[in-house]
Amino acid sequence: MFKKVKDPGIGISSDERAKRFINPDGTFNIRHINRRTSFSRSYSYLIGISWLKFFGWVTLGYIVINLIFAVIYVLLGISAITKPTGSYVLDLLNAFFFSAQTITTVGYGAMAPKGLWFGIISSFEALIGLLSFSFVTGLLYGRFSRPKANVRFSSTIIIKEHKGQDSLMFRLMSRTTNVMIRPKIQVTLSLSKESNKKYINEFYNLDLQRSNITYLPTTWTVVHPINKNSPLCQFKRNEIPKLNGEILILVSYYDRSFNQEVHQAHSYVLNNIILDKSFIPAFYYGEEGYTILDHTKLSKLD
Amino acid sequence: MFKKVKDPGIGISSDERAKRFINPDGTFNIRHINRRTSFSRSYSYLIGISWLKFFGWVTLGYIVINLIFAVIYVLLGISAITKPTGSYVLDLLNAFFFSAQTITTVGYGAMAPKGLWFGIISSFEALIGLLSFSFVTGLLYGRFSRPKANVRFSSTIIIKEHKGQDSLMFRLMSRTTNVMIRPKIQVTLSLSKESNKKYINEFYNLDLQRSNITYLPTTWTVVHPINKNSPLCQFKRNEIPKLNGEILILVSYYDRSFNQEVHQAHSYVLNNIILDKSFIPAFYYGEEGYTILDHTKLSKLD
Amino acid sequence: MFKKVKDPGIGISSDERAKRFINPDGTFNIRHINRRTSFSRSYSYLIGISWLKFFGWVTLGYIVINLIFAVIYVLLGISAITKPTGSYVLDLLNAFFFSAQTITTVGYGAMAPKGLWFGIISSFEALIGLLSFSFVTGLLYGRFSRPKANVRFSSTIIIKEHKGQDSLMFRLMSRTTNVMIRPKIQVTLSLSKESNKKYINEFYNLDLQRSNITYLPTTWTVVHPINKNSPLCQFKRNEIPKLNGEILILVSYYDRSFNQEVHQAHSYVLNNIILDKSFIPAFYYGEEGYTILDHTKLSKLD
Amino acid sequence: MFKKVKDPGIGISSDERAKRFINPDGTFNIRHINRRTSFSRSYSYLIGISWLKFFGWVTLGYIVINLIFAVIYVLLGISAITKPTGSYVLDLLNAFFFSAQTITTVGYGAMAPKGLWFGIISSFEALIGLLSFSFVTGLLYGRFSRPKANVRFSSTIIIKEHKGQDSLMFRLMSRTTNVMIRPKIQVTLSLSKESNKKYINEFYNLDLQRSNITYLPTTWTVVHPINKNSPLCQFKRNEIPKLNGEILILVSYYDRSFNQEVHQAHSYVLNNIILDKSFIPAFYYGEEGYTILDHTKLSKLD
Repeated sequence: MFKKVKDPGIGISSDERAKRFINPDGTFNIRHINRRTSFSRSYSYLIGISWLKFFGWVTLGYIVINLIFAVIYVLLGISAITKPTGSYVLDLLNAFFFSAQTITTVGYGAMAPKGLWFGIISSFEALIGLLSFSFVTGLLYGRFSRPKANVRFSSTIIIKEHKGQDSLMFRLMSRTTNVMIRPKIQVTLSLSKESNKKYINEFYNLDLQRSNITYLPTTWTVVHPINKNSPLCQFKRNEIPKLNGEILILVSYYDRSFNQEVHQAHSYVLNNIILDKSFIPAFYYGEEGYTILDHTKLSKLD
Repeated sequence: MFKKVKDPGIGISSDERAKRFINPDGTFNIRHINRRTSFSRSYSYLIGISWLKFFGWVTLGYIVINLIFAVIYVLLGISAITKPTGSYVLDLLNAFFFSAQTITTVGYGAMAPKGLWFGIISSFEALIGLLSFSFVTGLLYGRFSRPKANVRFSSTIIIKEHKGQDSLMFRLMSRTTNVMIRPKIQVTLSLSKESNKKYINEFYNLDLQRSNITYLPTTWTVVHPINKNSPLCQFKRNEIPKLNGEILILVSYYDRSFNQEVHQAHSYVLNNIILDKSFIPAFYYGEEGYTILDHTKLSKLD
Repeated sequence: MFKKVKDPGIGISSDERAKRFINPDGTFNIRHINRRTSFSRSYSYLIGISWLKFFGWVTLGYIVINLIFAVIYVLLGISAITKPTGSYVLDLLNAFFFSAQTITTVGYGAMAPKGLWFGIISSFEALIGLLSFSFVTGLLYGRFSRPKANVRFSSTIIIKEHKGQDSLMFRLMSRTTNVMIRPKIQVTLSLSKESNKKYINEFYNLDLQRSNITYLPTTWTVVHPINKNSPLCQFKRNEIPKLNGEILILVSYYDRSFNQEVHQAHSYVLNNIILDKSFIPAFYYGEEGYTILDHTKLSKLD
Repeated sequence: MFKKVKDPGIGISSDERAKRFINPDGTFNIRHINRRTSFSRSYSYLIGISWLKFFGWVTLGYIVINLIFAVIYVLLGISAITKPTGSYVLDLLNAFFFSAQTITTVGYGAMAPKGLWFGIISSFEALIGLLSFSFVTGLLYGRFSRPKANVRFSSTIIIKEHKGQDSLMFRLMSRTTNVMIRPKIQVTLSLSKESNKKYINEFYNLDLQRSNITYLPTTWTVVHPINKNSPLCQFKRNEIPKLNGEILILVSYYDRSFNQEVHQAHSYVLNNIILDKSFIPAFYYGEEGYTILDHTKLSKLD
């Protein structure tokens, strides 16, 4: 018989306004407040954002730092690096260019610092430049090399007869061309039940037909048979997609490109379950005897 | 019944002057002497210090190296790079700027080396510069990317009735917004007993209500029930905070940002136990249906 | 008795055109189509290719970027950086050299940008240069430091009497001078059987004389005894090399240079089995009392 | 009773010339021949050597590359970068300095390339320079950050009565100030026995009083009791140091600075055993209540 299990750690008693625990992108549905800030957070932030945002921040930072130094150079007297043009804007632009030539260590020399203050400030601007580009080098490397699970889950989850029994199924694959080594999966059902006008969450482990395999080069259809050991057997098949609940998933596998074990969380809400459809195969034999895996078919139903 | 366990490895028979084994920051209370020094220690040191100290050392190093080269250039004759000013200080400053332009590889060229010795020395200063900034690049990356457990422990530890039984409780959470995956905790009690004017340490494992969970997105209240299996059951509840003992904690979890298992040690001294207070919840539901986790409430008691 | 096992995850029902599951280089025989492209893929690609290709791409990229900027500079008017030569080709070359001096941050200054547009573009070219070389730094480090299993398998696989029993044997060693720590091996046989003009794959685990050892400083001859527990005992020894099947191998060990566990897949097709030959020893005692390991003898038979 | 175990993987039948299997530095006593060379080996080599050798190679490489380019520049005609001096040596030196200014990207500009060939060659020298320093950045970071076990073993190994029984003992500690987390140790005895003028190795696991602990902040005395389960009980205590044998050790622990598990091999030859001496404590209580750990006392006997 199915049994309630302890809260896997969610530790949240939801009320009626509660949204899902785990978002489709694998993050948990938590807002943090009053967190102590630290310099390391900028690194985490810059590692986590999209490439577009990343290059946006780098370019913006480059312009802002150069503008700050340009203003300093203009205030100190532009004549120490180049002939004043008479126009404040053109002088500022020249100072900007001198700053850029210093911070990138290009240093053409057509503009070069004269005098004490320009010597000191440009010496430290070059230092700041090198430190900044060291930081960016680390960020770029960190963005690329950070071990990260790359599981793609089907957007669809179905209930369908499979080997004579209603079964809950979803599908997953690697987002990359890497074969997942020894993938393992753990599936927990959370059901939100009303009790005295408060919603209480109950948790159940869902037994799987197979919860681990040796390699995963193509797709894996994860199958939970809705037999008498399943907490879902207490509901009629049509009722299940109307329940207020969530299927919490934790996949781990050994990733061959990082050569270490990686984990990824995911969740489906019960409302998304589609009845009586099947997944169509995502791979087939090509002309030359190779197996062809079509990434666009992961979530396709017939 | 509770049983003494072997020394978990502390390996220290304390006497009456002894302080705690593990400091609140998770380091062990050991001073090392006569340790062989090596170049690698500078890296470990510069990885471990605060950002303020780190940039202080970098700036100091930059000034000192440039000063050394400036003195060399002045001794060799400043006229090989720029017109002598007649003032020793100004010549030294110009040499300093030339050195900075060389070591950062800015090389404006308004000052450029002439002659054999200036050619050789500036060639190697540029090499030293590149090696130094390579080193700093590695340090910066190492500082940011080093896998590190980020557990925050409540500053408070309490004894309170919980489910009809006195229980020892403390609380922990992630310092970051990352969800801790499969956290595990091991708690050992060390009691210091007098025997023939020497203090002997005895060690006991403390059973926990739950010693591992699947995820930890919010806070975890670790509960040790003071039942007949607890070594603390031999004392009256009021006596416990007067004992000379320490609670040694080792937490490990899989960190999603480093994608590897990390460990963190911590300890509480028994004297810090507060009786009959409870932790107030650190999270609540916000307006928009999100769980709000307030980092400042981790150690708050009602 | 030998027993069929579940598909280890290959998940492919082959037909008569099917080639092997795992290639001799350990990759799986899959073609991916319609995979979402991302910037990170260029990193994976540049990490995975040979050194020759890598430096080819770097050089090509360097020439192309400089050409693009050279064309821009010529279109904007070469006179802003150097005297026009009157020849379009020579002007383009000068612009190319100026671009190279900017992107590498050499910036001799004999050519230096004048005016607004040259100032802006050269400022950003220097930024692009530093970002590109940061990227290349990460690639170089990633190429060298990426944890990677370095097992070399014998190209030959034999069946031979060993301790009074026919045994299947192959040999492996470390490609590097590192000793493999705690190597483990798992061997699966796949047999392709015809049924209604379709080929069905059956999988069997092969028992090994030893499936794990403590260290592997030299070579390891992996031995599968073809006794009554072996799925191969149903065939005559001469028939085995004519079967349509594959031996799938997964080796894992703790690598001392990366200090982590690494995995490597490999496979042999049954057609490659050689009968009644033995491996000659790959190591012997040298003059000075050292064991000499000859890497060229791994696959040598007597 | 003690039992022979299988060869832990050494796989070597020694003859009378054989030296020890594992050297005191933890490397195995193997010479590799006919190993395929690859570019990656230079990285492994440069990662593994001492700091002195490393900087030696970097400096040598810098001088050699600059000399090669200097010769090319002189052959192409020094007048394209600076005024010829008339002296071949001085011209070569100037070309060397120009090369150094190019490869480090200092580019003062007092010497700057004119003409087609100088433009092309200097453009690519700057590229080579940046790639080389990227490589050196990776090397420096790799040298510092590579996870590595840092166990120091006592140079001495003793047999002494301990709790009423002769015991084999050696001592180990961390070379760093890091506390070793969950250290584990596995000890194997190899005995070389003569048989028909050939030496045969037999292997035995040695039982330890404790083979794992939770933390190791100070020193760990590893104790093998020579009771009836010990293969050493068949010899008289005075005979043991005269046996031809080796004690093979594999230690693994979780390192807090790398936050991963690391392994280290070590060995003692039986001839080094000292009878009836004890290790003196390596730590004591200091004035201020701290435990003082004296690294020089690890191998000290009374």
